[in-house]
Amino acid sequence: MTNCIYIVGMGPGKGTKMTIEARAILKEMDTIIGYQVYLDLLGEEYSDKELISTPMKKEVERCRICYEKALEGKKVAMVCSGDAGIYGMASLMYELLQEYSNPNKKIKLRVVPGITAAISGAAEIGAPLNHDFCVISLSDLLTPWEKIEKRLKAAAYADFAIALYNPSSKKRSHYLEKACIIMSEYIENTRPCGYVKNIGREGTEIKVCSFEELKNEKVDMFTTVFIGNSCTKIIDNKLITPRGYKKNE
Amino acid sequence: MTNCIYIVGMGPGKGTKMTIEARAILKEMDTIIGYQVYLDLLGEEYSDKELISTPMKKEVERCRICYEKALEGKKVAMVCSGDAGIYGMASLMYELLQEYSNPNKKIKLRVVPGITAAISGAAEIGAPLNHDFCVISLSDLLTPWEKIEKRLKAAAYADFAIALYNPSSKKRSHYLEKACIIMSEYIENTRPCGYVKNIGREGTEIKVCSFEELKNEKVDMFTTVFIGNSCTKIIDNKLITPRGYKKNE
Ligand SMILES: C[S@@+](CC[C@H](N)C(=O)[O-])C[C@H]1O[C@@H](n2cnc3c(N)ncnc32)[C@H](O)[C@@H]1O
Ligand SMILES: C[S@@+](CC[C@H](N)C(=O)[O-])C[C@H]1O[C@@H](n2cnc3c(N)ncnc32)[C@H](O)[C@@H]1O
Repeated sequence: MTNCIYIVGMGPGKGTKMTIEARAILKEMDTIIGYQVYLDLLGEEYSDKELISTPMKKEVERCRICYEKALEGKKVAMVCSGDAGIYGMASLMYELLQEYSNPNKKIKLRVVPGITAAISGAAEIGAPLNHDFCVISLSDLLTPWEKIEKRLKAAAYADFAIALYNPSSKKRSHYLEKACIIMSEYIENTRPCGYVKNIGREGTEIKVCSFEELKNEKVDMFTTVFIGNSCTKIIDNKLITPRGYKKNE
Repeated sequence: MTNCIYIVGMGPGKGTKMTIEARAILKEMDTIIGYQVYLDLLGEEYSDKELISTPMKKEVERCRICYEKALEGKKVAMVCSGDAGIYGMASLMYELLQEYSNPNKKIKLRVVPGITAAISGAAEIGAPLNHDFCVISLSDLLTPWEKIEKRLKAAAYADFAIALYNPSSKKRSHYLEKACIIMSEYIENTRPCGYVKNIGREGTEIKVCSFEELKNEKVDMFTTVFIGNSCTKIIDNKLITPRGYKKNE
């Protein structure tokens, strides 16, 4: 017998930001597992399901519950905000797969894609990523800071448009400033930048500013930051990265 | 009077890969404009709409039709595959906005995000982008090759996971090989890589291979290529990039 666990990206906010496919799969489930905030965002529509949450930082435990429920024969989905494969739980679920694989009950994993914050935030602020781009997390919880610094430098040097995740938190309140100082070797002060807070949720806030101003902006952990490439312009107070270079040179 | 043009990302394939929000918006429209292939993928559900397509490479013309229809008072959406802000039409629409802005009839643009090929392809092949990553197009139609080369090098040097768009076409059949040779300065031959063809459509094909093998793979323009970072592993024949480094060192 094979049982499939679905790892579902919910998109940035409420249920309408998920795909039609994701909703159809969640409707079929017996059990939905996730961080409490995401279960709350699902709302009434899924109130007939067994809903299980574990606290933040208990990610491994949350994954194990998925496997145990699946082995009991339940139809199980884990939900993540945005996309489950972008700083999400998809890889951890795969890393635990072998522990639970057994010849009698084979478990399969299926990642159901969702709109990640870089994409939903970009849509709110215009089209900042409409050419080659990088996504970098400023969180050094699981990644050495030297590695983050190297990536920031390389991304700025090679003129990528950049989306920054986890730009700040209580303990890391000056990280965005630190990152900007590193990138300022290659990015001029007037470069169009911006950020979006609370994408797809209550209290969405969109700000377009210069690279110089970005350093001192107050952002929080529900913010995605955008840094344009050398061709990015501001049109109608939106951040627009043209797709073609030739036309603009 | 303000009229809004929606620029809608359809996701990688058939209608179920779009968001609930995107579908609700398309249902409200009078006119849907897009490349013929995408209009065909929409299917029966939208057959009551005025559907307008222009040939490939007639992108500017397609955008102008949107504006003209909106000025006539029609509810208009332009559809793009994947996300409209990732090598899509969103920025071109913004670049034309000023030409059509006039004090009597103001036009607003709204980008409705969709699942881009890097995200949908990643879900099919495992979780290759579950840490900092870059998206790079190998098409030098609108970008000088030197710029692409610089970005490939920087991305490989800084140990990003990488998604490559437009890896090949009839005229550029050896571009993936060329790109691999450039990156081989920093990426070892055994690095886990892979690609997904025809994501979300008929004939989906998933291949996991080594960086050495990737060079000689035959890919086409409906393929998205993935190159792992230095921590990427193959688990259950899928490409998995762990989210945490510390655990793996
Ligand atoms: C651990 S990552 C999770 C990303 C998520 N899996 C995704 O694909 O969007 C958390 C970071 O994503 C970004 N983010 C996630 N949801 C967001 C939202 N609704 N609004 C703004 N930023 C968001 C923020 O930068 C936040 O610090
Ligand atoms: C001009 S770009 C358009 C990208 C699109 N806007 C998106 O967000 O996915 C075209 C490239 O995207 C990738 N792509 C788009 N749709 C795909 C699909 N269904 N399967 C595989 N790759 C796809 C391929 O690399 C292709 O050469």
